[in-house]
Amino acid sequence: MSLAARWLELADIKDELAARDWFPGTSGNLAIRVSDDPLEFLVTASGRDKRKRTPDDFVHVDAAGRLIGEQNGRPSAETLLHVEVFNRTDATCSLHVHTVDNNVISELHAATGEVVFTGQEIIKALGFWDEDAVVRVPIIENDADIPTLAAAFASHIRANAGAVLIRNHGITVWGETPAAAKRYLEAYEFLFSYTLKLRALGVHS
Amino acid sequence: MSLAARWLELADIKDELAARDWFPGTSGNLAIRVSDDPLEFLVTASGRDKRKRTPDDFVHVDAAGRLIGEQNGRPSAETLLHVEVFNRTDATCSLHVHTVDNNVISELHAATGEVVFTGQEIIKALGFWDEDAVVRVPIIENDADIPTLAAAFASHIRANAGAVLIRNHGITVWGETPAAAKRYLEAYEFLFSYTLKLRALGVHS
Amino acid sequence: MSLAARWLELADIKDELAARDWFPGTSGNLAIRVSDDPLEFLVTASGRDKRKRTPDDFVHVDAAGRLIGEQNGRPSAETLLHVEVFNRTDATCSLHVHTVDNNVISELHAATGEVVFTGQEIIKALGFWDEDAVVRVPIIENDADIPTLAAAFASHIRANAGAVLIRNHGITVWGETPAAAKRYLEAYEFLFSYTLKLRALGVHS
Amino acid sequence: MSLAARWLELADIKDELAARDWFPGTSGNLAIRVSDDPLEFLVTASGRDKRKRTPDDFVHVDAAGRLIGEQNGRPSAETLLHVEVFNRTDATCSLHVHTVDNNVISELHAATGEVVFTGQEIIKALGFWDEDAVVRVPIIENDADIPTLAAAFASHIRANAGAVLIRNHGITVWGETPAAAKRYLEAYEFLFSYTLKLRALGVHS
Repeated sequence: MSLAARWLELADIKDELAARDWFPGTSGNLAIRVSDDPLEFLVTASGRDKRKRTPDDFVHVDAAGRLIGEQNGRPSAETLLHVEVFNRTDATCSLHVHTVDNNVISELHAATGEVVFTGQEIIKALGFWDEDAVVRVPIIENDADIPTLAAAFASHIRANAGAVLIRNHGITVWGETPAAAKRYLEAYEFLFSYTLKLRALGVHS
Repeated sequence: MSLAARWLELADIKDELAARDWFPGTSGNLAIRVSDDPLEFLVTASGRDKRKRTPDDFVHVDAAGRLIGEQNGRPSAETLLHVEVFNRTDATCSLHVHTVDNNVISELHAATGEVVFTGQEIIKALGFWDEDAVVRVPIIENDADIPTLAAAFASHIRANAGAVLIRNHGITVWGETPAAAKRYLEAYEFLFSYTLKLRALGVHS
Repeated sequence: MSLAARWLELADIKDELAARDWFPGTSGNLAIRVSDDPLEFLVTASGRDKRKRTPDDFVHVDAAGRLIGEQNGRPSAETLLHVEVFNRTDATCSLHVHTVDNNVISELHAATGEVVFTGQEIIKALGFWDEDAVVRVPIIENDADIPTLAAAFASHIRANAGAVLIRNHGITVWGETPAAAKRYLEAYEFLFSYTLKLRALGVHS
Repeated sequence: MSLAARWLELADIKDELAARDWFPGTSGNLAIRVSDDPLEFLVTASGRDKRKRTPDDFVHVDAAGRLIGEQNGRPSAETLLHVEVFNRTDATCSLHVHTVDNNVISELHAATGEVVFTGQEIIKALGFWDEDAVVRVPIIENDADIPTLAAAFASHIRANAGAVLIRNHGITVWGETPAAAKRYLEAYEFLFSYTLKLRALGVHS
């Protein structure tokens, strides 16, 4: 697939997530693989308003997350997390968003280091088809030092699909295809919202 | 009505429900009857992103839910539930969606096997005009085996209009016309949200 | 203002309220005065999907709410409430919508027959500029017999601007101009949502 | 930047905030600096429906908030607050909106005169990059007398970026650029919603 096609694919996902207000205060970032050998990817430029669509929304970076040639803008400060995803797996897309619900879940379950889901049909959207499937999303502590954060994050990257919550710092979800990454993200957000609503009614799932 | 007209009708409903984010993680599916004798219908193709509108969104199937001729895509895994609706009633449209609220309601009331509503004006939208009308929505247990699930589901199909909640697996609503099916679905979702909001305030209706 | 201009004005308001999903299950109805002498108005046709915009969305009725000449569609079943508004005041627009929050408020405060607001800046949008202004919204019991309901409703119509909650049957708001009616409605809904959110946190305002 | 360019910039921000329903009942107002010497700015005309885009949405005013020449409409009643922002800082944009959540936060924390946030990644969007950054938003009492309110408000203006909550009267946020002001506003609203959701679950951050 051409670089232009990948750019459009990522821009479409950005538009959709932005329409849900999942990039509050220019937070969040997205990345899509454009080449395997050498590994190269597109990632959101730092500080952009993700509700707008411009020719400078993404920058083209190498396997270490460095700009390839001269470009308008610099890579998102958190590009290193996507670097870990693409270097350690065959995932083609990695999405990082803040929602009120994913941040609240990350705070409520921080002490146990993970949040666990089971008995929900939507779990099939995550690729687990067994009726008794148990889904665990690890929660790591936030760190202002991105290399430190990226190292903690990387320890939970074990497959071409996955997700990690960062305490009060949103979720990062990756997948085999851009459509899969978006599907996983939607499914996780649904599980978070469901769990919080039940808990607000006094039911701890 | 032509197949093309039916296709557009279902696509319009899909667009509207998708705009409300009622198909999280590509969940949910929709079906519309296109022929009575023999019974044939359109149903969402498996795994589609329902926010997009493409020529492959639906497939044309027979009374058993099997593809009629060669087509791009295969029927949704849960086509059997729509098969039961169309074979047992004169309904023309059947809608299955996941919302946070319908899943929470299904979990809260699972033990009693139904959720009951009364004293709400919106009940008239369901076709019950009596002031004291009581609406009961059955809740069945989820099952990863679709034929088993479809059999449990079918035992609650008693009229051309109806609804069944599947525990932590959304709601299926059907109606005499596509507009009626959508109206019922909206009314049920309103009743679910109303009930949960009151309950969060300590009032159990 | 011409009938056509009034039609467009009401259609624009309908579109905006529909975009907020304030007409669940084809509930709700809207009316706009088009003539004073004799009194005539436009009102939503019964059973329409208010998300769509068609030439049959409204019907033209007389002071008693009867169709003037032959038209596609019949007046909303609740046209009598708008009849009371237009006959008793100089209001030009009357809006009836169901929201989860207005229904929950109507149920929570039904026993006292009213809900009272004070100390909120948004009260100015209702036309009360005094810092200590107290706003009272009467709540009447619902009745499946519309003439009975209309009589109870009419007893609370005292000015060209006003609002009445019907228990578990939404709110009706009217105003001197269509823009004013919409402004009042938005302000009331804001007050309802604010009050419920505070109450969910254990604060009873 | 030309007056026309500034107008468009403010209109775009207005559209986006209006799409989120942050101007209920025509509440809220926005201002953008158009000249430094003499100080002049654009501010929303009083009573406009901020969901619509018209040539009369804003008026051009001087450093005291008075109309410059003849124009359609008069400045928002709360223009004096923006006057204080532009006279005391180099901010170029000032935004005032009502949301249910910012009003609820202002009521819950009114007794302590401020609401405090820490340990949230989104704080970086406010320009505080220290991991242990503590953000304090002052809360002032509302006053129907705008000069009195403006004086209380002005006592909290200490930098080119900032925010003040007015009890049950929304938030005013300003920034070095229009994009920054909007980013701050989004970040504050996220923090408010997060805090309320946690608190509803029994966690007081």
